[in-house]
Amino acid sequence: MIRLSSSFVRTLREDPADAEVASHRLLVRAGCIRRSAAGVYTWLPLGLKVLRKVEQIVREEQDAIGGQEVLFSALQPREPYERTGRWEDYGPNLFRLQDRRQDDYLLAPTHEEMFTLAVKDLFSSYKDLPTMLYQIQSKYRDEARPRAGLLRTREFIMKDAYSFDATDAGLDASYEKQRGAYQRTFDRLGLPTVICRADAGAMGGSRSEEFLHPTEVGEDTFVVSDGGYAANVEAVETLPPPALDEAAIAALPAMHVEDTPGANTIAALTDFSNQAFPGRGPVAEDGSWTRYEMLKHLVYLLTHPDGSTEPLVIAVPGDREVDPKRLEAALSPAVAAPFTDADFARHPVLAKGYIGPAGLGLDSDSGIRYLVDPRVVPGSSWVAGAGEAGKHVYDLVFGRDFTADGTIEAAEVRDGDPAPDGSGPLRLTRGMEMGHIFQLGRKYAEALDLTVLDENGKAAVVTMGSYGIGVTRAVAAIAELNHDEKGLCWPRALAPADVHIVATGKGQEVFDEAERIAAELEGRGIEVLYDDRPKVSPGVKFKDSELLGVPTSVVIGRGLASGTVELRDRVSGEIRELSPQEIVEAVVAEVRGA
Amino acid sequence: MIRLSSSFVRTLREDPADAEVASHRLLVRAGCIRRSAAGVYTWLPLGLKVLRKVEQIVREEQDAIGGQEVLFSALQPREPYERTGRWEDYGPNLFRLQDRRQDDYLLAPTHEEMFTLAVKDLFSSYKDLPTMLYQIQSKYRDEARPRAGLLRTREFIMKDAYSFDATDAGLDASYEKQRGAYQRTFDRLGLPTVICRADAGAMGGSRSEEFLHPTEVGEDTFVVSDGGYAANVEAVETLPPPALDEAAIAALPAMHVEDTPGANTIAALTDFSNQAFPGRGPVAEDGSWTRYEMLKHLVYLLTHPDGSTEPLVIAVPGDREVDPKRLEAALSPAVAAPFTDADFARHPVLAKGYIGPAGLGLDSDSGIRYLVDPRVVPGSSWVAGAGEAGKHVYDLVFGRDFTADGTIEAAEVRDGDPAPDGSGPLRLTRGMEMGHIFQLGRKYAEALDLTVLDENGKAAVVTMGSYGIGVTRAVAAIAELNHDEKGLCWPRALAPADVHIVATGKGQEVFDEAERIAAELEGRGIEVLYDDRPKVSPGVKFKDSELLGVPTSVVIGRGLASGTVELRDRVSGEIRELSPQEIVEAVVAEVRGA
Repeated sequence: MIRLSSSFVRTLREDPADAEVASHRLLVRAGCIRRSAAGVYTWLPLGLKVLRKVEQIVREEQDAIGGQEVLFSALQPREPYERTGRWEDYGPNLFRLQDRRQDDYLLAPTHEEMFTLAVKDLFSSYKDLPTMLYQIQSKYRDEARPRAGLLRTREFIMKDAYSFDATDAGLDASYEKQRGAYQRTFDRLGLPTVICRADAGAMGGSRSEEFLHPTEVGEDTFVVSDGGYAANVEAVETLPPPALDEAAIAALPAMHVEDTPGANTIAALTDFSNQAFPGRGPVAEDGSWTRYEMLKHLVYLLTHPDGSTEPLVIAVPGDREVDPKRLEAALSPAVAAPFTDADFARHPVLAKGYIGPAGLGLDSDSGIRYLVDPRVVPGSSWVAGAGEAGKHVYDLVFGRDFTADGTIEAAEVRDGDPAPDGSGPLRLTRGMEMGHIFQLGRKYAEALDLTVLDENGKAAVVTMGSYGIGVTRAVAAIAELNHDEKGLCWPRALAPADVHIVATGKGQEVFDEAERIAAELEGRGIEVLYDDRPKVSPGVKFKDSELLGVPTSVVIGRGLASGTVELRDRVSGEIRELSPQEIVEAVVAEVRGA
Repeated sequence: MIRLSSSFVRTLREDPADAEVASHRLLVRAGCIRRSAAGVYTWLPLGLKVLRKVEQIVREEQDAIGGQEVLFSALQPREPYERTGRWEDYGPNLFRLQDRRQDDYLLAPTHEEMFTLAVKDLFSSYKDLPTMLYQIQSKYRDEARPRAGLLRTREFIMKDAYSFDATDAGLDASYEKQRGAYQRTFDRLGLPTVICRADAGAMGGSRSEEFLHPTEVGEDTFVVSDGGYAANVEAVETLPPPALDEAAIAALPAMHVEDTPGANTIAALTDFSNQAFPGRGPVAEDGSWTRYEMLKHLVYLLTHPDGSTEPLVIAVPGDREVDPKRLEAALSPAVAAPFTDADFARHPVLAKGYIGPAGLGLDSDSGIRYLVDPRVVPGSSWVAGAGEAGKHVYDLVFGRDFTADGTIEAAEVRDGDPAPDGSGPLRLTRGMEMGHIFQLGRKYAEALDLTVLDENGKAAVVTMGSYGIGVTRAVAAIAELNHDEKGLCWPRALAPADVHIVATGKGQEVFDEAERIAAELEGRGIEVLYDDRPKVSPGVKFKDSELLGVPTSVVIGRGLASGTVELRDRVSGEIRELSPQEIVEAVVAEVRGA
């Protein structure tokens, strides 16, 4: 039994100054968590009870698919992370430290390397596989901008699981098992999620999906179509227009350079084109020029994990901006920064403001990497800078007049863009990443030399998956989803207690009866939070009860003299008057869902 | 059910090369733990199950005394630890790191500061107290010499509890509660412990006791007397001889300097004295000279946490060595290193080899700190160096001829030394520190300004206790205490499973029957470890069963054809033959202790 008179719980009437979102506000005000440093939180007794229930659900679903729980330290040596490249790839997000001998360590952001080594240590045959291991443990990432309470922190509890298979088909099966376990887990947590195609990012590997919980306070943007396509914005693939074959390309007008005085913006260039060459636009049915075909060139300085740099030119249709997150995902682990004036000075071949593919050294000779939007297909016709002031090239055809080193998914995704699988227009949605599953493939096993002997006695590299759930973030998402203006409304399975007993008034008989009911309920296996504070007004107790958010409460007060106590439902606000004799059974029925 | 065929368990026949103690050897060989870095271990499935059971017992006993569980991050900011001095006092034992903004953080060795701030955050009145908070969580200490598997690690799981009281009497009561909880906890863990007076060390505070588990592999030395005195060697107080009063001192012979050619060791000086001045020894009844009264002077360079240094001279009776651990504890947080030749050169007043208190500047004028063993009482008479080669001072009387800046408990403690409380001679014993409880008093509350309003509305500084149990070390101690030459012998309450079912042979009926028994036992709530490996020989399975150490095992094999299975007891080796129909009830009875 938790007695409010002596428990380490203090509710706050005021919102914390730094709280942007409801879950942060309410978890702090309800005495569930406290901040101890930027992005580092402490779990107080009521919050910890919720956290443990969430952990237990996650654990049960991992056990149910044959997951075996282990526990690794957060402190790990540099060497394995060096071998996979993550020591560098994680950049400033990694907490690095040295021990007294100046050996390098890190606080693990995830544990792929260590699980790989553990399996290498114990297993040697394909018969040992498949195996699925997991842990529930504190992770550390030195986020640049920790925010929104538990939504983005620098320390957080994560369930991370790792599958080890001898074959690709085995990996597919392990991945599907985890995918199912995740669906059941979020279902039990009451968190609707959309499974989105995702970018694998620094993790490497091939197939990857995120479990995104749609919410306004989410940091992720994802897209869905009515036909069932869902993807993180970073992972959306562009549906390109049809490419033309060689014959069709040959029939297109030849490229030509034109004076375009004053047309130094996409808008101005579009207007100019419509005035100077009316009806000759290559895309719109009526022949008008649109911003789309005014090919826009952006120049970046790319920094690789090893510290080396190189210029990168990206071309996107003129009606689209580059989305920094998509750009980042597309280039990771390299990092792109817009070219500065100093960078331009060092690369005179890139004429600031008039860059275009033609005559600009953006061919294989220039040595400068040049990537184009996937809409730039063979036969597509563009207008672009001619490499000198006041001039543009028209009827510039990709595959005939210029080529590129490849495509890049960096242009923004817009509401209404077509889904790549033809399942209809995309809708942009905000979401919170609750889980992420990866088919890592053999990246880690290769880097760390994890092989098993196959059926023919030959060494075969193991293939792996990794599967994460942000456990502390799940608590925040649950609080975010389950609250009203008065406070938290915990789902029954996750509440810090089953019932909140409120004794109001000054009469000893009220407290005696409350004590009796509390004890009887506890004897029935019901978790009781008992507000036994002697000198606190009924109003304050009711407000606290609403703030703390236990789904069922029992109020023992003035009515007791006339033989009634109240059973209250936190969400509906419904109040039932019952006799003190009836109340225990009624609470048990509520809690057990009878 | 844990199935050995698919579980992440591999037993080893060979001891790990670096294993010094049985717990380390066997926990690794039984697949409970693996080393991931120096002093950093991973918990594999079987080990984790034991760890969780130990944690749960610790938790229940904390809850039973009103402890409230919370959870702090290991990563904490420097500032609070700076204010209490521990940022510096912990020296190289503290893992320090910086975040991306170059702000200083640490991996907490314990959390006094953070709990103090949490209470300060939430509480403001004496009515809020007492409160007792605890957590079970990973701690980090950069030990110079991690060793012996889990016995001394750099990361370990600790239960740390903190009490907050408004009064000294309250602290006494909280301390006694924890003391009782510790006795019950170690009792349930089956770990005999001796409660020893302890040195508070870097924690500060007044009363402090250690729970030491007597074992040869322990790193601590403690003393016990038949009369019930027990203390860590660092905390043993010397029982001094009686001091003389002024009149008695005045009657003693005057000090005199003598030529002592060649007497440049304690032994030589004792022999010389017995030849030159027979029958004039001040201590022995027959007047012989003993090594005891040849006062030995040792010179150290003391380094304070702020980096400043100073010389320190210590005098101990000539028959005792200085115990480095007692010296360290007595001087902490300062650190002493023996004077080097260069140090002597910088302090010419300290004549190497002939140091004595007389005429040597070891008076208040010299500015050099001079501490004496507690046996150097007023009226005690000594022989000491005279500050020049070949000369010693005789009849040198403390309180008359020389004084000191204080006493120091640095001399070794010996078997047979008298207990300070008169409870008889001390016996030296090896032990392992399982728990440590401290009355911290107001040190942390003062440093961090934790006050509450008292009954008169005045701010009163809170008084605190701190209470730690090494949870991972407890697992090692349990393994150490419960093993034989064949492997581990887990106590029933802590075993990774209740029963180990071994199916031997090749007949499908054996595996079918084992499967049936395993399922039935699991249905009865029994935790089953099932060796279902199809192609492993009975001999290997039996060896593994002994190594893994589940207290009860069931062997289903050849006997099945004649209607018997075996119930084996791991510790006694007793084997009972039972029918397959009887076995389930028999196992349940064993497990439930019926």
